[in-house]
Amino acid sequence: MPKTSVEPQDAHHVVIVGGGFGGLFAARQLGGSGYRVTLLDKRNFQLFQPLLYQVATGLLTVGDISTQQRVVLRKCKNVRTLLATAYDIDPDAQTVSYEGGTIAYDTLICATGVKHQYFGNDGWRAHAPGLKTVEHALEMRHRIFQAFEDAERLPPGPERDQLLTFVVVGAGPTGVELAGALADLSQRVMVGDYRNIDSRDAKIILVEGADNVLPVYPESLQRAANKMLAQKNVDVRTQAMVEHIEDGSVRIKPKDADPETVSAKTVLWAAGVRPSAFGRQLAQRTGAECDRAGRMQVQADLSLPSHPNIFVIGDLAHANKPDGTPLPGLAPVAIQQGRYVAKLLVRRAKGKADKPFKYFDKGSMAIIGRYKVVGQVFGMKVKGFFAWLAWSGVHILSLIEPAQRITVSVQWMWRLFGRNSDRLITGNPPSTAAIQRAHGIEGD
Amino acid sequence: MPKTSVEPQDAHHVVIVGGGFGGLFAARQLGGSGYRVTLLDKRNFQLFQPLLYQVATGLLTVGDISTQQRVVLRKCKNVRTLLATAYDIDPDAQTVSYEGGTIAYDTLICATGVKHQYFGNDGWRAHAPGLKTVEHALEMRHRIFQAFEDAERLPPGPERDQLLTFVVVGAGPTGVELAGALADLSQRVMVGDYRNIDSRDAKIILVEGADNVLPVYPESLQRAANKMLAQKNVDVRTQAMVEHIEDGSVRIKPKDADPETVSAKTVLWAAGVRPSAFGRQLAQRTGAECDRAGRMQVQADLSLPSHPNIFVIGDLAHANKPDGTPLPGLAPVAIQQGRYVAKLLVRRAKGKADKPFKYFDKGSMAIIGRYKVVGQVFGMKVKGFFAWLAWSGVHILSLIEPAQRITVSVQWMWRLFGRNSDRLITGNPPSTAAIQRAHGIEGD
Repeated sequence: MPKTSVEPQDAHHVVIVGGGFGGLFAARQLGGSGYRVTLLDKRNFQLFQPLLYQVATGLLTVGDISTQQRVVLRKCKNVRTLLATAYDIDPDAQTVSYEGGTIAYDTLICATGVKHQYFGNDGWRAHAPGLKTVEHALEMRHRIFQAFEDAERLPPGPERDQLLTFVVVGAGPTGVELAGALADLSQRVMVGDYRNIDSRDAKIILVEGADNVLPVYPESLQRAANKMLAQKNVDVRTQAMVEHIEDGSVRIKPKDADPETVSAKTVLWAAGVRPSAFGRQLAQRTGAECDRAGRMQVQADLSLPSHPNIFVIGDLAHANKPDGTPLPGLAPVAIQQGRYVAKLLVRRAKGKADKPFKYFDKGSMAIIGRYKVVGQVFGMKVKGFFAWLAWSGVHILSLIEPAQRITVSVQWMWRLFGRNSDRLITGNPPSTAAIQRAHGIEGD
Repeated sequence: MPKTSVEPQDAHHVVIVGGGFGGLFAARQLGGSGYRVTLLDKRNFQLFQPLLYQVATGLLTVGDISTQQRVVLRKCKNVRTLLATAYDIDPDAQTVSYEGGTIAYDTLICATGVKHQYFGNDGWRAHAPGLKTVEHALEMRHRIFQAFEDAERLPPGPERDQLLTFVVVGAGPTGVELAGALADLSQRVMVGDYRNIDSRDAKIILVEGADNVLPVYPESLQRAANKMLAQKNVDVRTQAMVEHIEDGSVRIKPKDADPETVSAKTVLWAAGVRPSAFGRQLAQRTGAECDRAGRMQVQADLSLPSHPNIFVIGDLAHANKPDGTPLPGLAPVAIQQGRYVAKLLVRRAKGKADKPFKYFDKGSMAIIGRYKVVGQVFGMKVKGFFAWLAWSGVHILSLIEPAQRITVSVQWMWRLFGRNSDRLITGNPPSTAAIQRAHGIEGD
């Protein structure tokens, strides 16, 4: 199909489905490799998901954390990018179906990630947006800042309190970071912005079913995170399950107590995930063994046991650490897996022997509001302001586009001085003409 | 209503409807004035509209050109901001109605601007988005980059040509800048990004009913703009009217020739405007005299002749230049009018005599793709690269937030090196699960 391909049309064809961290790094690593490569994604950009919560809370703007795959891969002439939604796979015919066509592969890399799940309560979705896509982040931002705006127009009372109550469900890194950022917003950043309300009256509740926040982190970091959240007046409720969510309220069930119904206009979802629709389809077609979270069991080379020419990387893969526990669904894991598979294919093309995938853990961190961070770097536990600076540096360096590194640095530097950049409520604004018609005024 | 107002509740109340250039500068100028001021806007941010075309063409990201009014007015403790959609006015009772309440004013400043009109063909709107709001710009961007992505997936032929044909309707500054930016994108910026198409094959057609592009500019600038557009391979069709727009085609009628139907997937509207719904309502309620474009005739102090306590500023006002012609609908006019009315009110509070509004014309420019600009500054005609640099400086200085000045400078500097920042196709992506269901695959 390409008019001017620099690779012969009969070159081994690697098809990558999904252009997030895993897929994009695999594609880039395969640039100039001699393989013919096609990257399929339903979006034309890769998203720096670990910073998505900063878009949701108005600290960064969307363009800052997104990169066009096509631009990253511009110089990889053997790699083409197709904006297409892959929806099915035939492992026998070795083809992937997408809206508008079918593509044949010799090797497939599946990197389509995960999406939210509401534990079987899909009706909660409308009342508790998650945080996986740009649109989710803008929806969250809309709700957060609209709540403050609506509160500003109301007299004191239960309705205003409801608007100023925010519930974050799930205290993994995303939930903790989201709650911390919300606390910063209301306790510091927005103080003085309103005339009728005091933003410090906002209540932030963080709900977690496990015994502690950041359940997968070491205990000392959990304690540090707990302390920081308490300092920021975040009401942390561990060992508590969300039983029901509807417009304006959440029912929370503590482990050993009666359920409590919290009146809150804004509920933010940072809890469970499940495989992407394409990933689920791949598992079904190949009969891949999945863990409880729906992640596919992969071999030491990240391929499926039944199909050695199909690799699964990133959040979709259940790959084990040396101690037998699975690797977490984090960006560095996906990046390293993408690069690993690309290098493996290059080794094979050269007739070299395989090496198994090994995750190099540089550490993990969670930022809890401004200048506060808990984490471990190369095995050392770190926290506080200097950890925050280090964390910022690591994140900036991971942003693919140099232009983004600069703008995000500027934004962050600016943030040191207490100013913020993008708290816009976007989406369709109310139509004045429609409101006029509703009030019996002849519309224009 | 304010809990802690620093102004007495019986202070003269100035209500400003609309927080664009005019309204926001009026509000800021009234900070600390002794007046009690309320700014009503349906959006929580002011938009730097002259740069909106750069968002539409992927050069800037939304946060770069938007500013929260509430943040700008933080220190103006006598000014409160309400996110509310004003829809009616009672000039006798001196009240403005908004969704959720009614507000009484002593003085009203109406600055709600204009919106698009399709010359009575509202059906065209769906096929030819305009460029007045952030959502418009994102819609345009979506269509522009989606067209290239779709073309990349097709073999050569009429369908691909249709996807690569872009028609811009209206050759005022916005239309000219949009066509220039599109030409730059396809002729330079995106060259090498695609494998199957050559972005340079894109055709850009600019249609204008008047005799020349930039009809309100001096003739020598029109000639310069024409030349620059020709250099960029923009197909300029003046003295030509758009007769019909539907999905995939535009019928263009040249003045002295038969109509031609152009096959184009992307049509962008940069033609007529009409008053906002609130402005129209104000004109009706006050019996204000309007010009053909629906702008209200105002007096030398920008008030309505029938209602000296109602001021109309910005695009909604028909204010005359000394030569009797009306002032154009440009940002500097709105800014100066907003400041003027605020200062007038302060003068009156001090018992000083009124001065009539006088527009200080610093010049006007249009940027035609990268590094090319035509304009006049302080009466001098300028064009070329140095004019572009000056224009960039002027725009950066006009951005209200210092943080934005920095990020926009960085973006622009980066652009000098030929990289670009935000060509994301946002909005709801296709649902894989829905596509699966459409193909008979059991959805997840």
